[in-house]
Amino acid sequence: DAPLTVIAGPCQLESADHALMIAARMQTICDAAGAQYIFKASFDKANRTSVSGQRGMGLEEGLRVLQQVKDSLGLPVLTDVHTEAQCAPVAEVCDVLQIPAFLSRQTDLLLAAGQTGAVINVKKGQFLAPWDMPNVIAKIESTGNTRILLTERGTSFGYNTLVTDMRALPQMAATGYPVVMDATHSVQQPGGKGGSSGGQREFAPVIARAAVSLGIAAVFIETHEDPDNAPSDGPNMIPLHRMEALIGSLMAFDRLAKADPIRL
Amino acid sequence: DAPLTVIAGPCQLESADHALMIAARMQTICDAAGAQYIFKASFDKANRTSVSGQRGMGLEEGLRVLQQVKDSLGLPVLTDVHTEAQCAPVAEVCDVLQIPAFLSRQTDLLLAAGQTGAVINVKKGQFLAPWDMPNVIAKIESTGNTRILLTERGTSFGYNTLVTDMRALPQMAATGYPVVMDATHSVQQPGGKGGSSGGQREFAPVIARAAVSLGIAAVFIETHEDPDNAPSDGPNMIPLHRMEALIGSLMAFDRLAKADPIRL
Amino acid sequence: DAPLTVIAGPCQLESADHALMIAARMQTICDAAGAQYIFKASFDKANRTSVSGQRGMGLEEGLRVLQQVKDSLGLPVLTDVHTEAQCAPVAEVCDVLQIPAFLSRQTDLLLAAGQTGAVINVKKGQFLAPWDMPNVIAKIESTGNTRILLTERGTSFGYNTLVTDMRALPQMAATGYPVVMDATHSVQQPGGKGGSSGGQREFAPVIARAAVSLGIAAVFIETHEDPDNAPSDGPNMIPLHRMEALIGSLMAFDRLAKADPIRL
Amino acid sequence: DAPLTVIAGPCQLESADHALMIAARMQTICDAAGAQYIFKASFDKANRTSVSGQRGMGLEEGLRVLQQVKDSLGLPVLTDVHTEAQCAPVAEVCDVLQIPAFLSRQTDLLLAAGQTGAVINVKKGQFLAPWDMPNVIAKIESTGNTRILLTERGTSFGYNTLVTDMRALPQMAATGYPVVMDATHSVQQPGGKGGSSGGQREFAPVIARAAVSLGIAAVFIETHEDPDNAPSDGPNMIPLHRMEALIGSLMAFDRLAKADPIRL
Repeated sequence: DAPLTVIAGPCQLESADHALMIAARMQTICDAAGAQYIFKASFDKANRTSVSGQRGMGLEEGLRVLQQVKDSLGLPVLTDVHTEAQCAPVAEVCDVLQIPAFLSRQTDLLLAAGQTGAVINVKKGQFLAPWDMPNVIAKIESTGNTRILLTERGTSFGYNTLVTDMRALPQMAATGYPVVMDATHSVQQPGGKGGSSGGQREFAPVIARAAVSLGIAAVFIETHEDPDNAPSDGPNMIPLHRMEALIGSLMAFDRLAKADPIRL
Repeated sequence: DAPLTVIAGPCQLESADHALMIAARMQTICDAAGAQYIFKASFDKANRTSVSGQRGMGLEEGLRVLQQVKDSLGLPVLTDVHTEAQCAPVAEVCDVLQIPAFLSRQTDLLLAAGQTGAVINVKKGQFLAPWDMPNVIAKIESTGNTRILLTERGTSFGYNTLVTDMRALPQMAATGYPVVMDATHSVQQPGGKGGSSGGQREFAPVIARAAVSLGIAAVFIETHEDPDNAPSDGPNMIPLHRMEALIGSLMAFDRLAKADPIRL
Repeated sequence: DAPLTVIAGPCQLESADHALMIAARMQTICDAAGAQYIFKASFDKANRTSVSGQRGMGLEEGLRVLQQVKDSLGLPVLTDVHTEAQCAPVAEVCDVLQIPAFLSRQTDLLLAAGQTGAVINVKKGQFLAPWDMPNVIAKIESTGNTRILLTERGTSFGYNTLVTDMRALPQMAATGYPVVMDATHSVQQPGGKGGSSGGQREFAPVIARAAVSLGIAAVFIETHEDPDNAPSDGPNMIPLHRMEALIGSLMAFDRLAKADPIRL
Repeated sequence: DAPLTVIAGPCQLESADHALMIAARMQTICDAAGAQYIFKASFDKANRTSVSGQRGMGLEEGLRVLQQVKDSLGLPVLTDVHTEAQCAPVAEVCDVLQIPAFLSRQTDLLLAAGQTGAVINVKKGQFLAPWDMPNVIAKIESTGNTRILLTERGTSFGYNTLVTDMRALPQMAATGYPVVMDATHSVQQPGGKGGSSGGQREFAPVIARAAVSLGIAAVFIETHEDPDNAPSDGPNMIPLHRMEALIGSLMAFDRLAKADPIRL
């Protein structure tokens, strides 16, 4: 099994300089740690809790920045798509198209994304069981595209709370597709602050480590140099200055896990 | 308080004749029972569990049928929208635009729907708490549209199961907007049959009666003359021949509830 | 079907005078409303959240007070038992022995209670499904005792929260045994205040009415003349001065429900 | 931090020979792996799903067998207690008294157990949040006994299902008391087979590894040489012949975790 891939970046694109700063820092960290690195950032936050939440820089400008990250640093880039129309233009720039969890059953979006031929990272809906994912996969596969990643990002557990069921990771891996643990969204408290989501940033490394120990393919972590002042998802992002230690630690668990695979 | 409104029809449009048959039958039943009646049917099932599930007749043909129901029977009609682009054309025909539960936090869809000026019926996401709905409402209200209905359709409860929290009805009513109980989707078992959703049709009247007793504005019920052979949602639709008795029974509870309102 | 039975009283016994005051008031209310009345109070709160929570007056003194209520007012009385040893002495005084929800799978307690020949009211554990109850029933029936009541009191729903699944009422009724809705414990927020449980008193009438509309046999309501200063369960008890209106309202829904039974 | 402790044995005592066979085998495995070993078995299964489920050999006979395991193999032994009366006699033989999850809020049982001065392993109720445990701890501490272990064994998640929230482990560890992961009961499906509980034995190593990677003090695993024919909990016990590989694997993760502790 290949070493752990790290999908990381700020929740939303803020500026080219900001994206390049975070991407470069994460590249250095991952290179040193022996992890493959994919830069992640959103050009649009299409389902903010509140209508007054910042949406992001938009498709055109966002793709320009993602192209710059790709060109200057030679990194693969990932962003999320929300409509069928966004899929083709995003796929011209991005290596990985991500399907947001709330949209993980929207057939047309899955088909449009699949048809681009890009890698599709689909987040399991908070309302889905692990064994529901083969239906989601079949929608993408129906386009002939089998470059699929499956992301766990927590399951609804009462109100304003998510829980991560570790059994979901080997269950989804049994489909044959690589499994990603989204360690920062799984510690969100959706709507937990009234007009925005709360989060338990301190538990993201807990979830990440537990998942990596099970031998997953990749970990997804949102990071920011100043989470408390980030335009979105501040409560659950990990401060950038903590990422070096975190990635180093996760790689040690990854090596042990890959040498001793879980067999269901 | 006005008597109970009944929003009912087949899960998806099958043909003009089929729509007219169900609409006419429900109109007769509701007229006799003293209920206002809104015809409901979908032109597209955009988030079927499986890619091979039947999708429906599509926007153009669907709107033609809905227009026919409106014209021949003089009924208000409701259908659901899945993309921003669908909102304006649908609003030219339909009195009520419905936002599907999975899409209840998609800002652009809520704005596009609101901007049509039509009544917007937004279903509370399976992943939302009742007190999260003011954020959803504010998105619609930001367009100047305050013709809003709020629908309860169950909350994620473990895997492949929904539960209806009756407290949600008065809590949502406290926003001042009319509250609808979707009695048939709330007894779905999402993904419960592997490639499709299961359902507990026998409990839809249970949920409907409990909700109506709390004095809600409307009940939403999918019905079909032959649910076991319907193209979608068969396991939770109520057979058409049972609707007369059900509506009659609900109206008796509605009268009692409206005469003795719950005050939180 | 017989009219609704009301099981009501303070959470815990405080004094003979206090018990008699509440019992007499409830008796008057229920007589006027046409409901059968059973007095309920605990002599011991054996599972308080905190070790410093008030426990109650104890078995001996408690039974003396319950006997007094029985003798002076001619009322049937109910109390809960926590150990096998308590069952026989309690059954000498009480008409109904209640099994607490946490203890609803403790075989020896169910057997000891059943062996007394008294009516056994077993509360469904917060961790049980409605269809788990036949196993609980079979334990009691194995003693030859078939005088059994089944109480719904909410199901664990995330942390510190309960949800009442209305489907549980007809499901439990399908066993043939009378079903009771505990309207005040089902709106508890277990452990929700740190050192004690919170509650949502305002929703108890909501849950009670929804349940009664389904045609249940009895409703269970804790009440106190000054809930905010009661020794336990204050946040979810209904003020005594509100009981007359509540019982009157519930009886109207009960008459309608009994005339129009739900058939699964 | 000390290396991982392994608490393991059959669900229930079957005979002295059987207990000694499993204890001896586990002792050899743990010695070789560098783990401390505590033998676990129940003398009574007091809350079987069904009244016809096998209960076990009883207190007197059970204690005789546990004493034999202690004497012949020099092992510490753990068993669970269900009533106040059992605490003192059990504490004369056993090093650790275990409080079952359903009974984790029964004040008198916690006090009686604490008063013995033995180590108390209290399982977190399926209906409790991690932050509810300080109330449970305070009950035991009120006896002057601070030799306490806290066990995670899964939380109610919909019907007939448990989920393990990995955040609970560092949250409980923040109390200062050692945390145990019960890897076999947390994959139970309570009542899932109608008259008995189901289980997902294949996920026990998944849960165990994820938990051990977080640096917990101990893992609790039920094991049997022939789980499919064991008198109880067969569906979730791990076959004895798999324990050597499992313990070896867990110790490698334990060493890594203890060298790199999670800091909340």
